[in-house]
Amino acid sequence: MRSTTGWQAHGGTLRKEPISRRDLRSDDIAVRVDFCGVCHTDLHGLKAHDGESPLVPGHEFTGVVTEVGPDVTAFRVGDAVAVGNIVDSCGTCSMCAAGQENFCREFPTLTYGGKDRHDGTTTLGGFSREYVVRDKFAYPLPSGLDPAAAAPLMCAGVTVWEPLRALGVGPGMRVAVAGLGGLGHLAVKFAVALGAEVSVVSRSADRADDVMQLGARDVVVSSDTESVQASRDRFDVLIDTIPVAHDLAPYLALVAMDGTLSQVGYLGGITVEALDLLVGRKKLTSGGSGGVPATAAMLEFCAAHGLTADVEVLPSARVTEALDRLERGDVRYRFVLDLSDLG
Amino acid sequence: MRSTTGWQAHGGTLRKEPISRRDLRSDDIAVRVDFCGVCHTDLHGLKAHDGESPLVPGHEFTGVVTEVGPDVTAFRVGDAVAVGNIVDSCGTCSMCAAGQENFCREFPTLTYGGKDRHDGTTTLGGFSREYVVRDKFAYPLPSGLDPAAAAPLMCAGVTVWEPLRALGVGPGMRVAVAGLGGLGHLAVKFAVALGAEVSVVSRSADRADDVMQLGARDVVVSSDTESVQASRDRFDVLIDTIPVAHDLAPYLALVAMDGTLSQVGYLGGITVEALDLLVGRKKLTSGGSGGVPATAAMLEFCAAHGLTADVEVLPSARVTEALDRLERGDVRYRFVLDLSDLG
Repeated sequence: MRSTTGWQAHGGTLRKEPISRRDLRSDDIAVRVDFCGVCHTDLHGLKAHDGESPLVPGHEFTGVVTEVGPDVTAFRVGDAVAVGNIVDSCGTCSMCAAGQENFCREFPTLTYGGKDRHDGTTTLGGFSREYVVRDKFAYPLPSGLDPAAAAPLMCAGVTVWEPLRALGVGPGMRVAVAGLGGLGHLAVKFAVALGAEVSVVSRSADRADDVMQLGARDVVVSSDTESVQASRDRFDVLIDTIPVAHDLAPYLALVAMDGTLSQVGYLGGITVEALDLLVGRKKLTSGGSGGVPATAAMLEFCAAHGLTADVEVLPSARVTEALDRLERGDVRYRFVLDLSDLG
Repeated sequence: MRSTTGWQAHGGTLRKEPISRRDLRSDDIAVRVDFCGVCHTDLHGLKAHDGESPLVPGHEFTGVVTEVGPDVTAFRVGDAVAVGNIVDSCGTCSMCAAGQENFCREFPTLTYGGKDRHDGTTTLGGFSREYVVRDKFAYPLPSGLDPAAAAPLMCAGVTVWEPLRALGVGPGMRVAVAGLGGLGHLAVKFAVALGAEVSVVSRSADRADDVMQLGARDVVVSSDTESVQASRDRFDVLIDTIPVAHDLAPYLALVAMDGTLSQVGYLGGITVEALDLLVGRKKLTSGGSGGVPATAAMLEFCAAHGLTADVEVLPSARVTEALDRLERGDVRYRFVLDLSDLG
């Protein structure tokens, strides 16, 4: 076993302590983790943690390869790499065969809180200085991308990338993004770079300047009936990144005839009125994470467009502050932990 | 005013009595109603009837033109016509402009229980011997179609026709139809005629023979875990015609990657788990009724394919029996009232 240092949960708080990593299998690489984004999933995971399994959060990180297994050909020591929230899958089901490892029939192995497919241990996440990962689930980090600002691409980014691509977003399409956090601000940047006309749906008009800077055209103020009414049936695609349960009716009202609302920020029960879908034949879908080909394509797209997340980088010792502020929505737009303080 | 005879609700039961029809406006036609289908909406309407407004059910009927207003050019006395569940709309909103009068911004005027846009009276439905309707919302009944068997096309038919067309159903597509009533059996016939591979999802295997006769290939038995498991992720489109609230999860499980479940049989709250949509990027939508161009196209399609509903025709005096049996699901597949017994 290898040893490193990470932030491990104890009764809802994180403590810095030694953690173990497996010895490299033939197709593994060892990654020195430099930067790891802080995701709402980390918050949820900490709150729900029952102490039965170990928990080290973190599932969007970048770093440098420090060692490779004997069968690894795609990476060499010193390569910059990125890892997202899936680190393995069955590899044989129809979804894996289609490059949708995120929908693996036997459930993908999550980067933390997952069950390793070989030794059955609980996976420990990227809030640590080293990660050992199967080569297939690591991606070369394009040289033009800042490693700190690229880390959130690996979960927040691909989670909004997949629906935008699956729904054919491009020139001539009108796209709205609800919620302007880690996922939302990347959805705006992606949709703008894909050539769409992009608007943001926000509770207040305060963020209009921010929105313009991201490339969006305007803000629909969800608390303002007139603003909502003026944009009724306007958007071919609405990406809803709001991370808590909420009424979908006012958002569906903004979707155009035959358009789609994709909810990507919240996992749980969704209730809609049939009439809110029926009138205009609107569609509801949900998204999260992405397959290997989509993740690789997203990184290439980001490199081509010089596109990364807007991040606030904190030393990992301030992880609790980052989580507290994320919970309050006090972040523009994603916290990234700098793990170099772990040694 | 004109006078005719109809079946009017009194405390949840229907009584034969004289009812009034408006004198013809310049763009109206008078129709002798020969056949009117019996829809679940009629059942719901009767149960919910509070007695405040008059209620004569019936919104899918065929008959013969007996008189035309001075501006009517599309119809002549003696023409066979068909009328569905919408008899007027604002005509100026974006939805009306797009030929989606069923989604009219100012709400379409329903064939019964609606509010006439000119005189504000409550519209009275097709369980009557005469109906007066604006010419735009009457359709020439193609000569090859049996008038009794064509009546259900006007509500049940177009309600499943619109989603099948909007979702691009055609050769090479795999379509499932859940629920084998008035809507369901027409969905099967349409999808088969459109060239798709069609299956039926049913609670029991008893209806396998019926299903084959309609042109479907097989039955997925929703109560049989093995049958459901064998068809998991199989269908590009699933038309759900089940007329009561039900758990969508087992039906979503049958939908293929990027496929769509269209719920057309039930209006009300729909609850789904985000994960049931997320895994496979499945879409949920809802449908009901159709616009004028789609209704006309459906009738042309039916004429070209010799396609009508499978009906059980009863004299209108047996309307209560029809409603009772419909409620018990004891009908293959649609009751149609013969109104000639009204004189």
